[in-house]
Amino acid sequence: MADVESALAEAARLDTTDPLAHWRSEFVVHDDALVYLDGNSLGMTPKRTIEALRIAVEEQWAGDLITSWWEHDWIDLPLAVGDTLAPLLGAAPGEVAVHDSTTVGIFQLVNVALDLEPHRRVVAVDAHDFPTDRYVVEGLSRLRGVEVRRDLDDLDGVDVVLRSLVDYRTAERADIAAETARAAAAGATTVWDLSHAAGVLALDLPAAGVELAVGCTYKFLNGGPGAPAFTFVAESIHDRVTQPIWGWFGQTDQFAMERPFHPRAGIGRLLHGTPGVLGLVAARAGISVTVDAGIEAIEAKARALTSFGIELADGFGLDVATPRDPDRRGGHVAIRHPDAERIDRELGERRIVIDRRDPDILRLGMSPLTTRFTDVANGINTIATLA
Amino acid sequence: MADVESALAEAARLDTTDPLAHWRSEFVVHDDALVYLDGNSLGMTPKRTIEALRIAVEEQWAGDLITSWWEHDWIDLPLAVGDTLAPLLGAAPGEVAVHDSTTVGIFQLVNVALDLEPHRRVVAVDAHDFPTDRYVVEGLSRLRGVEVRRDLDDLDGVDVVLRSLVDYRTAERADIAAETARAAAAGATTVWDLSHAAGVLALDLPAAGVELAVGCTYKFLNGGPGAPAFTFVAESIHDRVTQPIWGWFGQTDQFAMERPFHPRAGIGRLLHGTPGVLGLVAARAGISVTVDAGIEAIEAKARALTSFGIELADGFGLDVATPRDPDRRGGHVAIRHPDAERIDRELGERRIVIDRRDPDILRLGMSPLTTRFTDVANGINTIATLA
Repeated sequence: MADVESALAEAARLDTTDPLAHWRSEFVVHDDALVYLDGNSLGMTPKRTIEALRIAVEEQWAGDLITSWWEHDWIDLPLAVGDTLAPLLGAAPGEVAVHDSTTVGIFQLVNVALDLEPHRRVVAVDAHDFPTDRYVVEGLSRLRGVEVRRDLDDLDGVDVVLRSLVDYRTAERADIAAETARAAAAGATTVWDLSHAAGVLALDLPAAGVELAVGCTYKFLNGGPGAPAFTFVAESIHDRVTQPIWGWFGQTDQFAMERPFHPRAGIGRLLHGTPGVLGLVAARAGISVTVDAGIEAIEAKARALTSFGIELADGFGLDVATPRDPDRRGGHVAIRHPDAERIDRELGERRIVIDRRDPDILRLGMSPLTTRFTDVANGINTIATLA
Repeated sequence: MADVESALAEAARLDTTDPLAHWRSEFVVHDDALVYLDGNSLGMTPKRTIEALRIAVEEQWAGDLITSWWEHDWIDLPLAVGDTLAPLLGAAPGEVAVHDSTTVGIFQLVNVALDLEPHRRVVAVDAHDFPTDRYVVEGLSRLRGVEVRRDLDDLDGVDVVLRSLVDYRTAERADIAAETARAAAAGATTVWDLSHAAGVLALDLPAAGVELAVGCTYKFLNGGPGAPAFTFVAESIHDRVTQPIWGWFGQTDQFAMERPFHPRAGIGRLLHGTPGVLGLVAARAGISVTVDAGIEAIEAKARALTSFGIELADGFGLDVATPRDPDRRGGHVAIRHPDAERIDRELGERRIVIDRRDPDILRLGMSPLTTRFTDVANGINTIATLA
């Protein structure tokens, strides 16, 4: 298949038989010729998001003003959107909240994990994990005397592990159950960062023994630019959660103003301040598209797209950094090349959008609801000609 | 003036001569007969916000996708919106960032204030300040051993003072310069919560000697439900700011992925994670209306509205909890009544929207760009008949 014409022919055939192909019409497409292989950085705009925002802004906010917090249940949006998302994680209603940024969510859950047991103070994070994950942990060494370990091979003496399920560079996927158990055997709680997994992999956090997880809704979940993050806390430990940032949305009987802080029951105790309604409304719309399409079908198409892309790249002799085993990867494909910066730029000039991660990784996101096999063929073919 | 007819006549006259009256047409009004006296909880919807969101969602996100972060400067939105807001605080460009929630902002700035000097650990917050302010400080006693003082009369031994400029119940306004100086004389840094002041009072934080402040954009600034908060840090102390939540948006050279955390120069080091673009776009639109109308004119109208309301309430013998001296109040008027809950409900049935704070406060927000003197007259008249 390592020639351009046969790759395009095979891609066209795969697009024709793709059972999810029609979902692309649920998204706004300005230019159907654009090859967008960056839905893992910013998912495309669902058409329903535009209508959901119109209702929230023009009918609810403008029309019903402050009463919308109750009449339109804005007050419960972080938990309601969490319930919408929960099935994608295998979670039960009441185990997920959508709020704040991923960074704040990581800060929160690492603190929660530290405070699950007295005297916890050692946090391990891989030296090559996504920067914000590392930074949060480094910051805790200053804020509260955390000792930071920078590799995950030896967990002896470690109390909390923070790690990404899918590597943001290579798409390598960890074995979530085995790694959660390995940490637990060492006495450590793992906080999973699902940013590059949620919405593209069918997850079952309870079956994997996961107690704490955080992730992003603006990538495969198509929640909009800078959409709020989600936090998952297993119901079994809700009563043991101590929030690091106490705020009025985490308080029992929020509008009884003169009381000391007493955290709400359940996942609501994860909340801090007034939630951003517009971001939540868009996140809900995006998440609902994935729920409606079905996460198993989405994961299956992600495997097909990434397999197709890897096979093609291998045929061209490109240096694929993503695991060949589909059980060990997420929804993107990474190609290493010393001229990554030039190639990325020249792809952009040809209306092929991917992204690049220092120093040498070309990252092709394959977002099953919007990416066509033809996009993958065009992307890899063009990289092969530029490489 | 203590009869309904003369109050309405006077109000109509004041509306006719109000130099800001035409600004109401810049907002979406579904029902001109609605008496909305809660713009201090949720400001009305500027028409320009709808257009700004349409551009951000339908043109930028849907059309230019990931490249919008650079092509449309989303990456700089927290600082750009901060620069838009800065003149309302008397601040210079580069001293304000708009990001995250007010609660997270308070958490951040109290930590920043603690870390300005070694060994700081005593924080004072008034026992009756807004709950989220108190909760954040209480939470820090657990997280990092802060000692909490619950009154502001004696600041001996206090390191950090957290206080609201305008009381959320009574609208009483503190003397910001005098109180900042009193705290400084005791060796303490004050973090000012400007939530009930920003957008309705012309502030000059540098002239008042303020180094740290936080506030809300969804009240008088009409930024939208749960709009992001702002943080102000005086340029003179930027280099001494240590962020409690380290994240990739606070990092120098954010996309160089393999480096340790090194905070950005300037106010950008206040950022944590990926900013919520939709919330920021709406916040900018709302803030820009206030900037365009002119904060001095807005403060003057706030005085006129609140003076009119207080005089009328006094005439009816209502129990006004707001200071009579216009220099000592913000943009709302509080009336105490033992049947506050019933009165609030019965006002609602008459399409008069105010809010209520436990146990006995009826709070009438007077938002100069949207509130008419006639609204104030209708609100107070009706309270008088229900009281």
